[in-house]
Amino acid sequence: MNLFDSISPLDYRYYGNNPKLFEKLKLYLSEDAAIKYQLLVEKTLVEVLAEKKICPKDAAREVARACGSISAEDVYREEEKTKHNIRALVNCIRRKVSDKSKPYVHFTATSNDIISTSEALRLKDAVIKVVIPDLIRLEKMLIKIARKEKATLQIGRTHGQHAEPITFGFAIAEYVSRLGSRISAIKIAADNMRGKFSGAVGSYNASSLFIRDPEQFEAAVLKKLGLKASTHSTQIVEPEFALDLYHALTSAFGVIANLADDMRHLQRSEIAEVAEEFTSGQVGSSTMPHKRNPINFENVKSMWKAFMPRMITGYADQISEHQRDLTNSASSRFMLEGVAALLAAVNRLSGVMGRLVVDHKGLEKNFSLSRERITAEPLYLLLAYYNHPDAHEAVRKMTLESDKRGIPLGKAAMQDKSLQPYLKKFTKEHKAILSNPEKYTGIAAKKAEEVCSYWEKEMGRLS
Amino acid sequence: MNLFDSISPLDYRYYGNNPKLFEKLKLYLSEDAAIKYQLLVEKTLVEVLAEKKICPKDAAREVARACGSISAEDVYREEEKTKHNIRALVNCIRRKVSDKSKPYVHFTATSNDIISTSEALRLKDAVIKVVIPDLIRLEKMLIKIARKEKATLQIGRTHGQHAEPITFGFAIAEYVSRLGSRISAIKIAADNMRGKFSGAVGSYNASSLFIRDPEQFEAAVLKKLGLKASTHSTQIVEPEFALDLYHALTSAFGVIANLADDMRHLQRSEIAEVAEEFTSGQVGSSTMPHKRNPINFENVKSMWKAFMPRMITGYADQISEHQRDLTNSASSRFMLEGVAALLAAVNRLSGVMGRLVVDHKGLEKNFSLSRERITAEPLYLLLAYYNHPDAHEAVRKMTLESDKRGIPLGKAAMQDKSLQPYLKKFTKEHKAILSNPEKYTGIAAKKAEEVCSYWEKEMGRLS
Amino acid sequence: MNLFDSISPLDYRYYGNNPKLFEKLKLYLSEDAAIKYQLLVEKTLVEVLAEKKICPKDAAREVARACGSISAEDVYREEEKTKHNIRALVNCIRRKVSDKSKPYVHFTATSNDIISTSEALRLKDAVIKVVIPDLIRLEKMLIKIARKEKATLQIGRTHGQHAEPITFGFAIAEYVSRLGSRISAIKIAADNMRGKFSGAVGSYNASSLFIRDPEQFEAAVLKKLGLKASTHSTQIVEPEFALDLYHALTSAFGVIANLADDMRHLQRSEIAEVAEEFTSGQVGSSTMPHKRNPINFENVKSMWKAFMPRMITGYADQISEHQRDLTNSASSRFMLEGVAALLAAVNRLSGVMGRLVVDHKGLEKNFSLSRERITAEPLYLLLAYYNHPDAHEAVRKMTLESDKRGIPLGKAAMQDKSLQPYLKKFTKEHKAILSNPEKYTGIAAKKAEEVCSYWEKEMGRLS
Amino acid sequence: MNLFDSISPLDYRYYGNNPKLFEKLKLYLSEDAAIKYQLLVEKTLVEVLAEKKICPKDAAREVARACGSISAEDVYREEEKTKHNIRALVNCIRRKVSDKSKPYVHFTATSNDIISTSEALRLKDAVIKVVIPDLIRLEKMLIKIARKEKATLQIGRTHGQHAEPITFGFAIAEYVSRLGSRISAIKIAADNMRGKFSGAVGSYNASSLFIRDPEQFEAAVLKKLGLKASTHSTQIVEPEFALDLYHALTSAFGVIANLADDMRHLQRSEIAEVAEEFTSGQVGSSTMPHKRNPINFENVKSMWKAFMPRMITGYADQISEHQRDLTNSASSRFMLEGVAALLAAVNRLSGVMGRLVVDHKGLEKNFSLSRERITAEPLYLLLAYYNHPDAHEAVRKMTLESDKRGIPLGKAAMQDKSLQPYLKKFTKEHKAILSNPEKYTGIAAKKAEEVCSYWEKEMGRLS
Repeated sequence: MNLFDSISPLDYRYYGNNPKLFEKLKLYLSEDAAIKYQLLVEKTLVEVLAEKKICPKDAAREVARACGSISAEDVYREEEKTKHNIRALVNCIRRKVSDKSKPYVHFTATSNDIISTSEALRLKDAVIKVVIPDLIRLEKMLIKIARKEKATLQIGRTHGQHAEPITFGFAIAEYVSRLGSRISAIKIAADNMRGKFSGAVGSYNASSLFIRDPEQFEAAVLKKLGLKASTHSTQIVEPEFALDLYHALTSAFGVIANLADDMRHLQRSEIAEVAEEFTSGQVGSSTMPHKRNPINFENVKSMWKAFMPRMITGYADQISEHQRDLTNSASSRFMLEGVAALLAAVNRLSGVMGRLVVDHKGLEKNFSLSRERITAEPLYLLLAYYNHPDAHEAVRKMTLESDKRGIPLGKAAMQDKSLQPYLKKFTKEHKAILSNPEKYTGIAAKKAEEVCSYWEKEMGRLS
Repeated sequence: MNLFDSISPLDYRYYGNNPKLFEKLKLYLSEDAAIKYQLLVEKTLVEVLAEKKICPKDAAREVARACGSISAEDVYREEEKTKHNIRALVNCIRRKVSDKSKPYVHFTATSNDIISTSEALRLKDAVIKVVIPDLIRLEKMLIKIARKEKATLQIGRTHGQHAEPITFGFAIAEYVSRLGSRISAIKIAADNMRGKFSGAVGSYNASSLFIRDPEQFEAAVLKKLGLKASTHSTQIVEPEFALDLYHALTSAFGVIANLADDMRHLQRSEIAEVAEEFTSGQVGSSTMPHKRNPINFENVKSMWKAFMPRMITGYADQISEHQRDLTNSASSRFMLEGVAALLAAVNRLSGVMGRLVVDHKGLEKNFSLSRERITAEPLYLLLAYYNHPDAHEAVRKMTLESDKRGIPLGKAAMQDKSLQPYLKKFTKEHKAILSNPEKYTGIAAKKAEEVCSYWEKEMGRLS
Repeated sequence: MNLFDSISPLDYRYYGNNPKLFEKLKLYLSEDAAIKYQLLVEKTLVEVLAEKKICPKDAAREVARACGSISAEDVYREEEKTKHNIRALVNCIRRKVSDKSKPYVHFTATSNDIISTSEALRLKDAVIKVVIPDLIRLEKMLIKIARKEKATLQIGRTHGQHAEPITFGFAIAEYVSRLGSRISAIKIAADNMRGKFSGAVGSYNASSLFIRDPEQFEAAVLKKLGLKASTHSTQIVEPEFALDLYHALTSAFGVIANLADDMRHLQRSEIAEVAEEFTSGQVGSSTMPHKRNPINFENVKSMWKAFMPRMITGYADQISEHQRDLTNSASSRFMLEGVAALLAAVNRLSGVMGRLVVDHKGLEKNFSLSRERITAEPLYLLLAYYNHPDAHEAVRKMTLESDKRGIPLGKAAMQDKSLQPYLKKFTKEHKAILSNPEKYTGIAAKKAEEVCSYWEKEMGRLS
Repeated sequence: MNLFDSISPLDYRYYGNNPKLFEKLKLYLSEDAAIKYQLLVEKTLVEVLAEKKICPKDAAREVARACGSISAEDVYREEEKTKHNIRALVNCIRRKVSDKSKPYVHFTATSNDIISTSEALRLKDAVIKVVIPDLIRLEKMLIKIARKEKATLQIGRTHGQHAEPITFGFAIAEYVSRLGSRISAIKIAADNMRGKFSGAVGSYNASSLFIRDPEQFEAAVLKKLGLKASTHSTQIVEPEFALDLYHALTSAFGVIANLADDMRHLQRSEIAEVAEEFTSGQVGSSTMPHKRNPINFENVKSMWKAFMPRMITGYADQISEHQRDLTNSASSRFMLEGVAALLAAVNRLSGVMGRLVVDHKGLEKNFSLSRERITAEPLYLLLAYYNHPDAHEAVRKMTLESDKRGIPLGKAAMQDKSLQPYLKKFTKEHKAILSNPEKYTGIAAKKAEEVCSYWEKEMGRLS
């Protein structure tokens, strides 16, 4: 199939047409990878059989060699005959080993011992080996920006309205914190993935014919693969372990979508506090050549809208009748796409955050719009604290007067006689804020630094 | 890219590995098709410019020729430079026409005049040319089964419990009716797809510089393509037209998922009223070779679980800021996958319904489990109707007695003296039901036929 | 139960604490209304029995009287005994009629003949009698604003970036068109609601014992109620009719959420093109008393986020096993809440749009930010059209020069000698645009008026 | 408002009409509870102010007394004037304290310091104090059933088809394990809820005017309430902590929905392995009085369908612009309903599982349907293991022969001469299985006991 004969935007555009992502992800997320992981499980099964002296060492070696030489193509062609994917896989292996080794291929296993286990493992590997490192890279980039701009004044916004001053680094620190928390959650969930080797209905019927302690045997196979069993399984592993991981991934997607959304709004023509460096030759609009559109931030949010709703599929797939119905088979294949989509978004966002231009003039300009109004708040709070009987009304009048006289509110207050009894109780810092509302940023800069230090350390622990 | 390097199950498995679907759908759903439709719109634009004498006929011919020789590959390679897909497309066309024709390429258009219009058109075409015909094929198959089995007795089930008798054809007629209604809804929504040619913000700024009546011009371009404009557009077509179509498609998916679910339950070991003919060589289970698993019905439900939740993306994409933000761009690409998934499910279901085995013995066996209980209901209703003062209690006692005497309830009732005053008012048909509860199917057979006739006619109208 | 003992925000806040909405909606959406509609169906059933001479006229009168005197409270208390809601309802009615009328109560009906039919009817009534009129009221309000501001210049925005000029009325006309289209869709779907009277499994088993043509009888009952039957039913009406209506309502919710979102962004401190009139005494923020927060617009979007996902419940409820399982019973009760939520949002939005302040100075100020860049676009398009060999580059240079000389781009172009060959081909209108980019609004004003006229007429047709 | 004037099914039916749930939940989930928790936070704030000697002890006492005497009704009436809920609350408190205490009410707090914190706390309390205990009660009930029936033979089912034997206790142990895992996950997430006291934009602007270490002050207030702060906050607490808890709750809902679904299928007329004890007087169907419908199991699944999709709202609410927009305000109110719905379902399920009737005859009857086929599997596996060159074919022929001779497959195999070389290698246990396929349950009984022991211990740790 030609790349552009694909119908999945992942395949023709976001992953298949992106050589960097393609190389990273095809080892885990392609169908070829799925088969490779199944072969790994089949091979490990026979190795443990040999270790437990249930089969000869030679058989294990033969099977390992066979598993190394089978492609997805081979298995799919065989499946056309068997109409059963694992039977096809097993046939492919058996064909490549001697008659005396044949019985040990897939010995005592049911299809889903192989599928549940291999799928758990490749999801875990994709997350641990690709997703988490790339998320940590983005996290470190955010830490760098937050630190660099920790003292850069910005007007804080709630309801889209100017509120109280913060710093740009503090605003970015929000995402350092939230993304950091999500990376931790992803790590915990990925480390908690489970496999199984308990047979067709979970009660080890076949394996207990031949193996004294089939639970211990299961544990040995899974340990070799880096997994554990859950306390119970049916034909399949309990769905909640993968679901927890998908939740962690989806919630991380929400955090980066929020960051992208914030950046995109800060890039609005009227706000213009940040911009994305454009590469030369890039066209902003087919008819408006000078336009600088936040297309990368928009793309991140759009990918989130495409993939976040798929959690519903995950929740729906919790329900499987009795010891299993197969209505989660096709759907669980699609769940894995979400990993690729998240990674595409993370890489896109890392790219654009790496060349983010913070427009300090724009930040100042916007701040200045609300400078006077900002003074009013600490003035009101301080007067009230020092027992002014009607601080709110006093400040309101003062605002009108400073307007009329054309002087800053802080100055007008300082000159007002009726306020002197209260003003003299003000500390030096209080007075400084009244004349410099730029200082009214609370502990924004300090907090930005604290958040960065905390999560930098955590990331060190996780990598 | 190799087929098994894909990560979308559609690409490597359900569409890309299914030659029949692949050939049908790549004309509409592949990325190559997307570019082809864009080229069609660019070509049509210049043709109408020529018709309106805004550009020379030669230019139109040149552009048409150029549009016929450009591939997705070409455009993607150009996009690597421009970082803008439509600018890349336009560059590809311009490169292939003479200098004097160049200005007319994409003339007065904004990117989304091309994208919104071409995407509307290929979605419409995919639905009208592939989805509806395949749905009608399934509908006709259901009509055939419903008619053939319209008199085949089946126990009706509510809450999974035996309720009152129906016929198997009547049960299938449910799906004839519901699927028919969905096909109609899909047709209406597909015919109502809209395009646009109103420029970057929807107010025809550029086109009104050169064209006296730009709305009339827009109408001419769209008419040539088989579309209409909506009463208003911004940079994009109002999203509700495509959303209505996705709703119709998703609700059709729900109907076939329900049918698949019913069949899969009727195939349960204990129920066994239907079965799927197995092809020779097919393996039911890797360790249980004789098992007949309803994997196709399960697959249909599983695909539905994977795709139904994506309606959320459609609803989320209704929101686009001001004259448009781009956060619906990537997400709307993924929406189209749903068409392929539905079609894969429809074809899968048609395949298995076409070789459905209705097990008449199984149907009879299950009916017989509740035969006596069924007699009780009409007996009770009739006694009550003919003013028996305590029909419910009388029937209860009668049931106990017939059990004790080991004779059918109907017979016991006929012999009971105290019931004679009421029984003599019973019609012949009433009495027949008491001795033959098999007859207590209401108008099931007649209704099945009516439903089939009605929807057969409707399908004729739609094809 | 005390109002504030409620846990549903609808009950304690958005509906129950809003006397206007409460009075409107309790007739349709309260549980008391649910019971009233069930009683209406039971009464209508007996009336038609009387018309068809199956029961005496007296019985119909008795039942009608009984149905008029039963409360939800009565039925719920009875249900505690029967554990079955319709059996409880029937017991309540039977208790109030003479012995000879008792048999005709609920005669031949199954519970869901009553529930499916009454629920279809009250959903239809709520939509037709409350939702559509309130939506039309909002639509007319939007038409009024669009017309009033049809010539009010506004900078159009795509990607949050200034694009080409439009008018504020044109921007509002987008919502006139989209909301109009949704109102039409809602009306069509509401008029298409269906009821049933086909018994426990849909094959008229019980009714065909007593009634020669049970389909015709069903049609008579439903007609009296203002409904039709679908071509097939099981224990329940086909779910797709209500689902189509919920889709139409949900998609209307999306449109008003988009409008709210646009307004909220236009109210941002830096943009400030619109504002909501504050009532005196209203507090913007507990610590920032002067803040004007777009809380009503925010509320509309928030309600949409709470209710839009519930379409998933609707789609999931399409699946009901065989002739019905009851897993759609509780869930369908919750679906109806969406009607109240939409109505609360519509009323909230109507309130705030009714006192919307359009800040013409703010609009001008924002426009002026991009005034020069706007001139560049038509200049470039026109030069290209009149065969300037490199229009894009010429305009780029001109922009730099006009900057340097401190004169408007249009004026600089007019004075440039090298451009004279092209400029002399420009029409008067073209030249006017170059010196007044405010005129470069395409047909925005005309389009706004057209959209208003079209939908005003349509609304007339619908009310 | 009358109970039946409500429109939320929770209020009028599942919670408001259920005295047991009502009493439990109104302390946490009612709007009255919401206000009570806000008052608790306001009171705690002033207490810590007093501890830190920022305000006099008397003020703290006055405020505590005032907070104890304010009702939701009071606050809502005040909100009608202020149009701001927390300002209304603050006014209510201030009105009840002396002038000199007034300034300390809500001192340095922003509305969302109160709301974010109180909402986190009451969600946590509802979960820890009501949800987890009730889930543990259900878990213990399942443990009891699993143990009691750990040796009760049941045919295992995959794809709805008979597969290999298990025990009924083993089947229930699946839910012991999955529910246990969810209870742990809920506990971890509930213990991890966070509050905040960082002001209007999260940078402690107001509080740092008066308090040297505002982070330490925040920690003190939150500690008194049993909460911690997150590493960063804006106007609101990072949404991911509550989202993780909602995920854990939703995934627990999925587990109980799966259990309910399994039970409901096992109650099918043809399967009849379990039943729910009916209370006397309960009516199964309005026209079919003897029917035993699994309405409670159906209700559990239906509630899950109504509430599971609301996770989408949670994920959508992760996105809040800049230091906060208010579009998560109404929606987050509705999220809390999910706790009530889950609890209603858990209580419903506990009720019905507590009176579950396991029909041992039904279990045996179904097992016997597949008895012979079951023998074939271990026979085939053992022959293959002992190197029979074509075990599969040998068993196939043996099956046909045993059918023809009318003797069990195991017996036929024992008598077959050609199999003797292999059969003599069979252990005693192997031979026992061939004559008693009832023994082919693997380690089902042992596993059931292990699962019960493990989770019993874990539950002890959690309660």
